Amino acid sequence: MRRSVKLYDDPRSGNGYKVRLLLAQLSQPYQYLPIDILLGESRTPAFLKKNRNGRIPLLELEDGSCLPESNAILCFLSQGTPFWPTERLEQAQVMQWLFFEQYRHEPNIATPRFWLVIKGFEPTPFNLELLAQKQKAGNQALAVMDEHLQHRQFMVAERYTIADIALYAYTHEAHEGGFDLSRYPAVLAWLQRIRAQPGHITIDQWTAG
Amino acid sequence: MRRSVKLYDDPRSGNGYKVRLLLAQLSQPYQYLPIDILLGESRTPAFLKKNRNGRIPLLELEDGSCLPESNAILCFLSQGTPFWPTERLEQAQVMQWLFFEQYRHEPNIATPRFWLVIKGFEPTPFNLELLAQKQKAGNQALAVMDEHLQHRQFMVAERYTIADIALYAYTHEAHEGGFDLSRYPAVLAWLQRIRAQPGHITIDQWTAG
Repeated sequence: MRRSVKLYDDPRSGNGYKVRLLLAQLSQPYQYLPIDILLGESRTPAFLKKNRNGRIPLLELEDGSCLPESNAILCFLSQGTPFWPTERLEQAQVMQWLFFEQYRHEPNIATPRFWLVIKGFEPTPFNLELLAQKQKAGNQALAVMDEHLQHRQFMVAERYTIADIALYAYTHEAHEGGFDLSRYPAVLAWLQRIRAQPGHITIDQWTAG
Repeated sequence: MRRSVKLYDDPRSGNGYKVRLLLAQLSQPYQYLPIDILLGESRTPAFLKKNRNGRIPLLELEDGSCLPESNAILCFLSQGTPFWPTERLEQAQVMQWLFFEQYRHEPNIATPRFWLVIKGFEPTPFNLELLAQKQKAGNQALAVMDEHLQHRQFMVAERYTIADIALYAYTHEAHEGGFDLSRYPAVLAWLQRIRAQPGHITIDQWTAG
């Protein structure tokens, strides 16, 4: 049996979905290993040996090397494919949006969704204030995207790249974190373009290798 | 006069220091344009035209193209230099640590420093609890680095890369955010190795092009 890469992932994770979506669109087979983060399965001694940071998704290569960080995995898998630009400044612009996603978007848009629909939310005064701060910052991130997309079809280079994949993952589920996407019409139109890409899968899907 | 790149940066910023340090070690001349973020100079209409996200550092290229996000700038500038590995998995491992830095390290280590020594800290119950959470998470990030460095000289590929530059910037100032680095001896030894690299500059320095 031919060995393939392994993806350790919690099926509810948007960060994991980024990798599943790219692997599907690359038609690359892989072994899917579900990890329940709420049961602590990403903090077991065996998992911490693969990623000391205790996070999914994690890509394990054929030789046993382990690569964590969803956006680093996207960079790794997309090299030499149409999902990664060939021009140096466009490559840097993809990186720009990947860092924007992890710094300004994901902590403020994915974390409220995680609290409200996955982990459960205890409405203490501290938690309510932190949620409000994150929703305010998340709306600022969505406004940055909306303005950027008003005159563009895709985030970078006028074609579908891993910058779109990374930002799609939690943007399209933002309503679950209490965000009203109808305020961002350019974002809504972009979401439709992403869904129309060949080989698109939804967040609850994966392909087994 | 030969045109050079421009760096918009707040001299107190560790994110800006990453870029200044790499430019110095590349011996690349540049024009330095100080921006006072506390005075709102990164949110003026003129600056927002360059970066709608309203953040420094920002690299403006000779043709007027603007690239924000410190770690994306490091990737852009280091292509084809010894600060960026040539092997594909090692490149992805550099990316891994750049995303770790922006997601787990900087928000928990740089932000307390920003509050405590730059912006000023109002000790409300909410702020005190958030500071405590960030210091706990920041110590977890430092512990991940310390374990990683126990058997390594540098973060990736056993040589000095932009992964080291990105993590050095706020790690070496972590005490200003209330962190005790003596708990992390492998990190302390690594800081010394970084300081010993040719062309090293300190956070309060820059070279004018």
